[in-house]
Amino acid sequence: MRYELYYWPGIQGRGEFVRLALEEAGADYVDVARLSGRGKGLPAMMRLLENTEHGRLPFAPPFLRAGELIMAQTANILLYLGPRLGLVPRAEASRLWAHQLQLTVTDFLAEIHDVHHPIAGSLYYHQQKREAQRRARHFNAERLPKFLHYFERVLAGNANGRGYMLGRTVSYIDLSMFQLMAGLHYAFPASMKRFGRKYPGLARLHDKVAARPNIAAYLASRRRLPFNEDDLFRHYPELDIQ
Amino acid sequence: MRYELYYWPGIQGRGEFVRLALEEAGADYVDVARLSGRGKGLPAMMRLLENTEHGRLPFAPPFLRAGELIMAQTANILLYLGPRLGLVPRAEASRLWAHQLQLTVTDFLAEIHDVHHPIAGSLYYHQQKREAQRRARHFNAERLPKFLHYFERVLAGNANGRGYMLGRTVSYIDLSMFQLMAGLHYAFPASMKRFGRKYPGLARLHDKVAARPNIAAYLASRRRLPFNEDDLFRHYPELDIQ
Repeated sequence: MRYELYYWPGIQGRGEFVRLALEEAGADYVDVARLSGRGKGLPAMMRLLENTEHGRLPFAPPFLRAGELIMAQTANILLYLGPRLGLVPRAEASRLWAHQLQLTVTDFLAEIHDVHHPIAGSLYYHQQKREAQRRARHFNAERLPKFLHYFERVLAGNANGRGYMLGRTVSYIDLSMFQLMAGLHYAFPASMKRFGRKYPGLARLHDKVAARPNIAAYLASRRRLPFNEDDLFRHYPELDIQ
Repeated sequence: MRYELYYWPGIQGRGEFVRLALEEAGADYVDVARLSGRGKGLPAMMRLLENTEHGRLPFAPPFLRAGELIMAQTANILLYLGPRLGLVPRAEASRLWAHQLQLTVTDFLAEIHDVHHPIAGSLYYHQQKREAQRRARHFNAERLPKFLHYFERVLAGNANGRGYMLGRTVSYIDLSMFQLMAGLHYAFPASMKRFGRKYPGLARLHDKVAARPNIAAYLASRRRLPFNEDDLFRHYPELDIQ
């Protein structure tokens, strides 16, 4: 099965959580909107988004084509890919638990995004900078510690898990935690420097995932886009703790 | 199986999407935090939320206990309950599609919530009213039409579906669309009056779900809490279109 991933070509964004799963598993996939040529590139993605023929429309990227299936929503894509890529245990209870954690990552990402866009996605950052600074103070003091404390507790609760979030081997939620920690360190370095030591398990998990051969190869490749200020994780020093 | 639902006792909130599924199916369930007595009420919910023994902690309500399983995240609970309550077609493709739509509802709900809380959940509305009014203008002009247009298109795309969102019978996503439309009419009556006629399919779906015998009985019962201004959908006239 060759998977087709569709996502905005210039950013890691939510698509990165799918990319990491495909890369870790060594899956056969194409990142359609980043390629050029017939049936490729951004126009191919926009065509699928606007297609009135196809009944099962995505609301937004990322979406994945797997044969006849097209599915959207990052966590839903990982729910589908997890068992196929060997990135989640078999038992239904474990799959629901992994998915529940991924949905909590989804919630956290929406909050992280809205730190720099508290008023509207249709406005530029500089048009909502004052509100962003006010939201950022609460984010750094309340939300960032709350989410990371939660994930650290989950990790500690999986005592026989050799440092993974569930079970004893890597699963897609570990890859998502890596990306979350990497993004937070990029966007909020001062905040993470101050609070990061409270989450030693997550710090170790980040390093452990980054050192996995397929992930390390991916991170060193040109397929890994750099973080940037059009992305979900943005480094604006005025939104970090001062 | 007697299901135990745990959710904040004074609001419909996200728990309502689970309640509607349980009610439509005539499932045996208890709404634990709304009961009193030993092992019931808010303390029982808080105990589970703060339990450091139990490995699989919810981040936040709602969560559902089904025998040995405890699961959180509204859409995840519906993913689990859907096939068990006969509220989703059997095929994997249909289940992923229903879940994808539910996750899009989840995204929309987060945006609806943040219209009245654009800065922080820890602040009162009146402490972020100015920012809320600014966000509300974009919400009414951009986001509300975008999401409703999308759902209306999905509905229209299911041409043989007798007015349901997928397949030919009611599924949990129809119940969620009912709740979404009911909540939006409560919170943004002027906006819905102006834009509502653009979404005739969703208006019919709302009425169709409300008229289903089990849902009608539920809505007329004391189990259905009234909308209120501690809830997700809040009616603040200054946040509606003027």
